[in-house]
Amino acid sequence: MGLNVSPALATELAIANRILYDQQIVDGLGHVSLRHPDDPALFLLSCSRAPGLVRPEDIVCYRQDGSSLDPQAPRPYLERFIHAEIYRARPDVQAVVHSHSPSVIPFACVQKPLRPIFHMAGFLGEGSAHFEIREAGGDTDMLIGSSYLGEALARSLGSRSCVLMRGHGSTVVGTSLRQVVYRAVYAEANARLQMNAQALGEPVYLNPREAQLASDANDGQIDRSWNLWLQRLGALDFSPA
Amino acid sequence: MGLNVSPALATELAIANRILYDQQIVDGLGHVSLRHPDDPALFLLSCSRAPGLVRPEDIVCYRQDGSSLDPQAPRPYLERFIHAEIYRARPDVQAVVHSHSPSVIPFACVQKPLRPIFHMAGFLGEGSAHFEIREAGGDTDMLIGSSYLGEALARSLGSRSCVLMRGHGSTVVGTSLRQVVYRAVYAEANARLQMNAQALGEPVYLNPREAQLASDANDGQIDRSWNLWLQRLGALDFSPA
Amino acid sequence: MGLNVSPALATELAIANRILYDQQIVDGLGHVSLRHPDDPALFLLSCSRAPGLVRPEDIVCYRQDGSSLDPQAPRPYLERFIHAEIYRARPDVQAVVHSHSPSVIPFACVQKPLRPIFHMAGFLGEGSAHFEIREAGGDTDMLIGSSYLGEALARSLGSRSCVLMRGHGSTVVGTSLRQVVYRAVYAEANARLQMNAQALGEPVYLNPREAQLASDANDGQIDRSWNLWLQRLGALDFSPA
Amino acid sequence: MGLNVSPALATELAIANRILYDQQIVDGLGHVSLRHPDDPALFLLSCSRAPGLVRPEDIVCYRQDGSSLDPQAPRPYLERFIHAEIYRARPDVQAVVHSHSPSVIPFACVQKPLRPIFHMAGFLGEGSAHFEIREAGGDTDMLIGSSYLGEALARSLGSRSCVLMRGHGSTVVGTSLRQVVYRAVYAEANARLQMNAQALGEPVYLNPREAQLASDANDGQIDRSWNLWLQRLGALDFSPA
Repeated sequence: MGLNVSPALATELAIANRILYDQQIVDGLGHVSLRHPDDPALFLLSCSRAPGLVRPEDIVCYRQDGSSLDPQAPRPYLERFIHAEIYRARPDVQAVVHSHSPSVIPFACVQKPLRPIFHMAGFLGEGSAHFEIREAGGDTDMLIGSSYLGEALARSLGSRSCVLMRGHGSTVVGTSLRQVVYRAVYAEANARLQMNAQALGEPVYLNPREAQLASDANDGQIDRSWNLWLQRLGALDFSPA
Repeated sequence: MGLNVSPALATELAIANRILYDQQIVDGLGHVSLRHPDDPALFLLSCSRAPGLVRPEDIVCYRQDGSSLDPQAPRPYLERFIHAEIYRARPDVQAVVHSHSPSVIPFACVQKPLRPIFHMAGFLGEGSAHFEIREAGGDTDMLIGSSYLGEALARSLGSRSCVLMRGHGSTVVGTSLRQVVYRAVYAEANARLQMNAQALGEPVYLNPREAQLASDANDGQIDRSWNLWLQRLGALDFSPA
Repeated sequence: MGLNVSPALATELAIANRILYDQQIVDGLGHVSLRHPDDPALFLLSCSRAPGLVRPEDIVCYRQDGSSLDPQAPRPYLERFIHAEIYRARPDVQAVVHSHSPSVIPFACVQKPLRPIFHMAGFLGEGSAHFEIREAGGDTDMLIGSSYLGEALARSLGSRSCVLMRGHGSTVVGTSLRQVVYRAVYAEANARLQMNAQALGEPVYLNPREAQLASDANDGQIDRSWNLWLQRLGALDFSPA
Repeated sequence: MGLNVSPALATELAIANRILYDQQIVDGLGHVSLRHPDDPALFLLSCSRAPGLVRPEDIVCYRQDGSSLDPQAPRPYLERFIHAEIYRARPDVQAVVHSHSPSVIPFACVQKPLRPIFHMAGFLGEGSAHFEIREAGGDTDMLIGSSYLGEALARSLGSRSCVLMRGHGSTVVGTSLRQVVYRAVYAEANARLQMNAQALGEPVYLNPREAQLASDANDGQIDRSWNLWLQRLGALDFSPA
């Protein structure tokens, strides 16, 4: 662990990485971060490593310009600016997941929003936001590799909990680490259900008030899922790479 | 185990929970209950815990008003009223599964019934019932969190074996624990097949008499599947959480 | 093992059962049989047990009327008549698999044949046959529970390698045990591909001559797959149930 | 290992085989090869064995006419001419994967190209090429079993990175072993996403410049995925068959 990272927090964040891999939200790519609890201008994120292999010692503390506090920190993710700029724009956000979870991408590519098809996805009540990188950057490598592009992504996200990124993936935000992991898992589940429902007929979505009430109710139940996901990981192998 | 719960029954119910998780009918949420064999006004259900983690000691005995016999019982599921009110309305029902099994939800959300596409799902002969929570409760958190909503759900179920819950999931009922687990597994299988068949053309469903005959025949074969599902679980870890 | 069953053959047939379960062609139900190498009027099939649990000692020798040679044999499968009547009608057939493999059933229910979409399924060159149990038996429990229904199924199969059974599943036949396991695996694979291709556009199928040539070529490669499937099973647990 | 094969290279190629099997790109069939680093007229490929079982000692060195350097080499793959003729036609190609990966085949059979739907598949920027074996060989067993057919396939591939083979599968090429494994994994992922997106609406694909930039950026990240895939394999069993 680098400067300014508590062991307990680094372990919790490493576990979040492992859960997201085990739940098939991330593969070799994707990342999850946490705003620093003591300094809202900092955030914690693994160095460049597959989420399924992240160990507590890989967690690095970054500033909002994407630089690491520890000048000796290992190679960072190219897209740490996703996290940096969302934390800057959204003081309510405490945790962020960026992934290429497979059922969400088709919605991003046909420019249709996710909508809450069941109560587990009440956090999608306003629908997902859409980000078209061409509007901000013209022809790019599709990656959020700069503060400039991160800022454009955060602007597209607005006040929502999920933004779809055309030709790329999605980003979800939450008010805690466990909540954002929950949201990443159920954004994917909702997308799969929505895809199947739309093929069968005209789905009835949760209305905004149902979505809000369901989201509030589910927030009290997140630990039940977290405990299961944690138990599935078995004995964690945090040995050096 | 709380008051009025025999160890053998608590173990069988814990195993049913583990099977439903292993068969991917439930994830962190969902539950299975059993009417008390000695007192039809009581039923057995786990306390609030992910089904994949339920142990015999988690089984609690509830009254039909949703209160637990044991005043020291741990936190209950919010939706125990699903079970309570179905046991009240349906004396023939001995066991109930509530789940968010993924292929069933799209049918619930487009308001199309499950119909028996193969003999394993003969219990769907009458088609699934439909429950729209808005009709009973207006805008809610979508959960069956009261006797009032449980009673409305039981009314929608009527005399059928399966009710789809819009924006939420489904509930199946049976005359024994092993039968209801079988039905939950094959309601999901039938939904997946029905979805795929409808995309290919116009399916021929079992007619009511075929469905009834197939259901009767399958009831004599349930242990063959149960034994397989049990064996898949391996050595069960019922150690304290 | 019962009368007239060699240990080596019983073990090979038990392994075929385990492979079909591991490859997700059968679940708790389904079965695979082998014509007796010394007496073409007999065939070998497990007693009533989930294929994933079958052990060599479960293999029973049956006559074509469905009776077992060993009067002490345990409970048989209700549908052993599928096997009996196909062996009677098709002297070229040495092995039979009956399953509810999930991608095939939708084709059976919309009455569309499987056609060979890739070389691995050249054995489907003539297309699959179709069996409608109502034509032979009116309203039934959908099961092939008698010589009469078995004979009707065998007639529908005709000279083909695969027959789809409406509201039920499918049956494939082959000239050896390994070949029929291969065909059961790739009938399912072909169905999944055909379903996806038909959703994308108008598939070009193998023509009859391509199918025959591919089938002949693949028959020389079956052991490559068999060896992999066998290795996946790991150390086999053939301990008493 | 046969003549002219270094142990380190044979091990890397055996690992590539195991990864492709673990990632579900190949099953019992399919193969991956590497141009010989010291002699561009030679290439390394396993003898005829399921990729999931390949060991370093199975790697054989072949000439471009499909003959093995070692006259004692075990039975070769029938389709080694895929590799031989692509190496002959494309001096830039250092590694080749041929597979029947399941989401790609439907595109091959309806004659629609893969197009890059997300940045991970930037290497598909020009779209996939299409190969119709009937044009070169009339009615065949669908296999590339000769230099003549291999040459026709290489001609269809042209300068692209992926060629779909009607009624058969696909072949991808790359400038390194790790890159071609990455491309095989993400060609399959792209196909699945493209299939789902086309069912939802009209996808926006990466334009040629986005695809090129994304491909260049991803090439610097391949080891992150490779390390994960390698770790998933656990302790490798390279014991004799």
